[in-house]
Amino acid sequence: MNVQLLLTPHTLDRAELEGKTVVVVDVLRSSTSICASLLAGARAVIPTSGPGEAGELRAKLGADSAVLAGERNGVRIENFEYGNSPAEFLPETVGGRNVILCTTNGTGVFGRVVRAGLVFSGALVNLSSVAEAMAQQNRDAVIVCSGREGGFSIEDTLCGGMLIDRLRQTHACDLNLNDAGSLARLLYRDRQTSLKEAIAQGEHGRFLTSLGMSGDVDLCSRVDSMPVVPVLRDGRLVKFETV
Amino acid sequence: MNVQLLLTPHTLDRAELEGKTVVVVDVLRSSTSICASLLAGARAVIPTSGPGEAGELRAKLGADSAVLAGERNGVRIENFEYGNSPAEFLPETVGGRNVILCTTNGTGVFGRVVRAGLVFSGALVNLSSVAEAMAQQNRDAVIVCSGREGGFSIEDTLCGGMLIDRLRQTHACDLNLNDAGSLARLLYRDRQTSLKEAIAQGEHGRFLTSLGMSGDVDLCSRVDSMPVVPVLRDGRLVKFETV
Repeated sequence: MNVQLLLTPHTLDRAELEGKTVVVVDVLRSSTSICASLLAGARAVIPTSGPGEAGELRAKLGADSAVLAGERNGVRIENFEYGNSPAEFLPETVGGRNVILCTTNGTGVFGRVVRAGLVFSGALVNLSSVAEAMAQQNRDAVIVCSGREGGFSIEDTLCGGMLIDRLRQTHACDLNLNDAGSLARLLYRDRQTSLKEAIAQGEHGRFLTSLGMSGDVDLCSRVDSMPVVPVLRDGRLVKFETV
Repeated sequence: MNVQLLLTPHTLDRAELEGKTVVVVDVLRSSTSICASLLAGARAVIPTSGPGEAGELRAKLGADSAVLAGERNGVRIENFEYGNSPAEFLPETVGGRNVILCTTNGTGVFGRVVRAGLVFSGALVNLSSVAEAMAQQNRDAVIVCSGREGGFSIEDTLCGGMLIDRLRQTHACDLNLNDAGSLARLLYRDRQTSLKEAIAQGEHGRFLTSLGMSGDVDLCSRVDSMPVVPVLRDGRLVKFETV
């Protein structure tokens, strides 16, 4: 299995995705919020690239069937019901409804990978579930780290490296990695006994903590705490039902 | 000393460079060719962002005082005297003349960092010289990995990580690193006993070898074989004379 990891999405438009499994990773926090929403019973999470697109979609779907959630630079977008804290997505807030999600780094990536064979949303909270789904598919894969403000982010790279490590160790996949994939795995293996600390002490972790959101950083670092595989179907993230 | 490493130049325009030392790294091959040219007695190396700019500059300077060198996708540009192999830059080819250099990844970066306090060109061949110059300056620094086709490159990241390691170990600098800087140092420390192999087996190394240029890959991997510090002055790279 060829597994290519992109440290940031900025070279994505040139990547070959056709027929492949793509995993979009945004540990802090959209990938985690997507898992939380689906586990809370949301009908779907609809990732959007900007507040304008999100607002239009909500007008179309109606306030009964859809909620607006998202952030810019960590802070809830004005007039949106929810921010991007995974703790906000509960049965009583999003159960049975669509979550229109708009975040700084993660949600815009989904619109750029629609040509892939299959698109998953990957985080630490659903790490083993996604690795298992990737192994079952047994197709070449591209792991896209959403990064932070266009640059590298340590938490997404750690997550990507852990996915690769799981594919190799748990699922005995024979992997061909690109240079960035090898680097991500090295990073994961170096920090695997101190994952939470590495994320909390990283640039994005410290930024969120400075906004009073250290609870989110902690929540997003809990490996396998939300066992669900979000898959993109017609622009909507829904639960992937494995066969 | 704050040291920030950029894995690729794509976020460079937002980086704070004012008053800082910037090191532009393009191990394969422009940073190495720049060192080779200056050691061969070139008057200066003039980095350009495209063949058009290079051609105009040469028309202005005249063929007697300037040579055209450069590549696109590894191959010498048509009508240019030289490609981008460090082995081409010898006293008999470039001695006493200006080298107008135009490469796919590296040379365009110099035009984007002119607002820095001081700009060096860093490679493995001049690693210790650059580390020493950085330590002498004792200013905050930004190490810009040129990368490959917009993406991450293992050889530039290794070189950046080695620079950081030298600053800390040899020069006892007290460093604050960004996440990418810590990652680069980790990569270097993991591969330090097999640097040549890591570079030869990386994507860019294999690409150059496929073009018959494995000799260049080897040449560019020889740590401290070209002890010179190229510094940018008015758009021209010349030898930095340390006090």
